[in-house]
Amino acid sequence: MTLNEINDLVKECGSASLGFLDKNGNPSIRRVFSTWHKGLGGHLISTNTSSMHTQTLLENNKACLYFVNCKTFQGVCLTGTATVHFDHEHKAMLWNEGDEIYYSKGVDDEDYCVIEFQADYGRYYSYDNIGDISAEELTEFDKGAVYKNYKTN
Amino acid sequence: MTLNEINDLVKECGSASLGFLDKNGNPSIRRVFSTWHKGLGGHLISTNTSSMHTQTLLENNKACLYFVNCKTFQGVCLTGTATVHFDHEHKAMLWNEGDEIYYSKGVDDEDYCVIEFQADYGRYYSYDNIGDISAEELTEFDKGAVYKNYKTN
Repeated sequence: MTLNEINDLVKECGSASLGFLDKNGNPSIRRVFSTWHKGLGGHLISTNTSSMHTQTLLENNKACLYFVNCKTFQGVCLTGTATVHFDHEHKAMLWNEGDEIYYSKGVDDEDYCVIEFQADYGRYYSYDNIGDISAEELTEFDKGAVYKNYKTN
Repeated sequence: MTLNEINDLVKECGSASLGFLDKNGNPSIRRVFSTWHKGLGGHLISTNTSSMHTQTLLENNKACLYFVNCKTFQGVCLTGTATVHFDHEHKAMLWNEGDEIYYSKGVDDEDYCVIEFQADYGRYYSYDNIGDISAEELTEFDKGAVYKNYKTN
């Protein structure tokens, strides 16, 4: 797979599996919506402040984000760090109409936050090949990229 | 969700996300086929010996297995340990007709192995509730269970 093909896979997914370490230091996974991307390395995820994954990422920011196309079984695992944003700007940027269902107090609900995942390196999987994505390749590929919402519906 | 409902979710999934730690100690995820289950806690996965997840699990057996229904967004994250089996018995049990595509030398291909995941505890997610599954609940629920293939096609 080329980096462009991997980037297309990420943009088409809409959701991803977020990997992190739980309070015991054991691997844990949550399914998250992920439609905001900055190139291949940067991803924004709106989520609950009170959620276990948010609380443990505040303690240990090591994380991975795995995008997979379940039909073609092609996937990419990006490894890096997660930063939890509580500022109005990030929260307003990711707010969708109707999100009051999840966060009754609106954009500034304290239980609403934005996780920014930044990849350090990656590894992709396809029926025809497997390979690593280096930090240098990510930096070069993402040059000039800005966050954009690729939500399709 | 009740433990029976969670068990139904697992049996219907067919695949899961396997969480482990890569050689740098960072969280990593791979999508794996998972149709062999022993109750809610035990799961067998056929995979490549040479794969990065197999090689790193041989070094550090901490793992998690995440089953999710993408339509209902209900999921369960089981946390525990992975044991890699190379014996003929396990390999023959999980062998499917046509697996020569992946393992050209057949059942005893050195690149073919079976990962056994055994859960210590879990956490489930549903639209209506979130909760923990304790080691005691898993032991009680799985009493008398044996490995069975729930593959549907």
